[in-house]
Amino acid sequence: MTDPTRIASLERRLQILEDKIEIGQILARFGPAVDSLSGDAAAALWTKDGVYDFGSATLEGQSQLKGLVQLTTHTEYVDKGCAHVLGPPVIEIDRDRASATGYSQVFIHDDGQWRNVRTSANHWTLKRTAKGWKVVTRQNRLLDGTQNARDLLARASQDNVQGDNA
Amino acid sequence: MTDPTRIASLERRLQILEDKIEIGQILARFGPAVDSLSGDAAAALWTKDGVYDFGSATLEGQSQLKGLVQLTTHTEYVDKGCAHVLGPPVIEIDRDRASATGYSQVFIHDDGQWRNVRTSANHWTLKRTAKGWKVVTRQNRLLDGTQNARDLLARASQDNVQGDNA
Amino acid sequence: MTDPTRIASLERRLQILEDKIEIGQILARFGPAVDSLSGDAAAALWTKDGVYDFGSATLEGQSQLKGLVQLTTHTEYVDKGCAHVLGPPVIEIDRDRASATGYSQVFIHDDGQWRNVRTSANHWTLKRTAKGWKVVTRQNRLLDGTQNARDLLARASQDNVQGDNA
Repeated sequence: MTDPTRIASLERRLQILEDKIEIGQILARFGPAVDSLSGDAAAALWTKDGVYDFGSATLEGQSQLKGLVQLTTHTEYVDKGCAHVLGPPVIEIDRDRASATGYSQVFIHDDGQWRNVRTSANHWTLKRTAKGWKVVTRQNRLLDGTQNARDLLARASQDNVQGDNA
Repeated sequence: MTDPTRIASLERRLQILEDKIEIGQILARFGPAVDSLSGDAAAALWTKDGVYDFGSATLEGQSQLKGLVQLTTHTEYVDKGCAHVLGPPVIEIDRDRASATGYSQVFIHDDGQWRNVRTSANHWTLKRTAKGWKVVTRQNRLLDGTQNARDLLARASQDNVQGDNA
Repeated sequence: MTDPTRIASLERRLQILEDKIEIGQILARFGPAVDSLSGDAAAALWTKDGVYDFGSATLEGQSQLKGLVQLTTHTEYVDKGCAHVLGPPVIEIDRDRASATGYSQVFIHDDGQWRNVRTSANHWTLKRTAKGWKVVTRQNRLLDGTQNARDLLARASQDNVQGDNA
């Protein structure tokens, strides 16, 4: 291969890694934003008309997303002490679009211990914008034995099943 | 340095990052696969004759690995609602072989909360195949105060102890 | 762009990814080190005069950091069975300095289950040394409803709030 060909290949491969790491960081920013009541920072992870559907409600657009940290359920959690912890996501990138699939959990302080009051499946879609990757949609469903949460998790596998193995 | 030398160095460094990220993604796929009863997707993370030893049983080869999601303990967990959540792994790569060390936890839905019924140490070995990185062995031991779980965790440190510090 | 310019750009971008992955790995090594009573390995994550402030006490320097795994609270946890699990950190790099923000949790074995006895906010500072990235300071505060833990989490957002969105 010529130098320019090798350089072009490196540029393509590096871009994919940068994208995966940036998307991982966007998801990692969600918990610290909401648990510190930083509504602007949380909303800024989404596009202008981004959607967060967590089952009992759907927030659409920056104004509603900023209001997430002011919901009574949320402020009560924060007053007690809470952590929104995400598990490591599976990330798939297709040029300027991406998806991520993984777990999120909410732990609430209660008498010297922390109780796990939400364990959910999440499926995120993201797009590349002039300001970097942004969340377009996030779907969140409680893993309480119902099928729709399992359907979200299955999306992590749908591109990875191989007929035979090495 | 000449351009080809710098390019070759970039290619080597980039390969290591790609490997680390791919291995992290393989581990991240385990939970969503088993929690959505995707036995084929779970098994496909291992080599054809891969091994998963979780203390009370050892699964060997694709057929047994696919059957993991049909074990009674597992299907009862899924019916109640469950999440197999992995902590961030320590990954060591040596050319076409790798290891990963970290935590895994199982949370089960129970009356509006999730109870943690397994917290384990894990040591994984992987190899590079024509189909990408695959798990060769995974050892999993409950962190219940016994020494063998701690021995698995100690493997993350064995390459990292330095006599003096910066 | 000329080849040397493109190569120099690749070198800069790759360095940032290597830094982020290395810093993530340093944090991932903490739990396995302390849960396997590997005091040397835990201390080696910090600089020679590194600081770990976890609220009820502050450890300063290698000798005190090595002693962390011999604290009575800690050995009692390990005897019962324990896991120090970190959530995915938000990492910011500025040349030879970096910060990381995220969650840490301690789970203790108790009669076939694991109880979450610490859920904390963490803010880490790191620097690049001749032996790679090392932790300079780690601050850890329980997420028990007090403001100072939320202040640590807010630091993840302070560089990321954008006035308008894509």
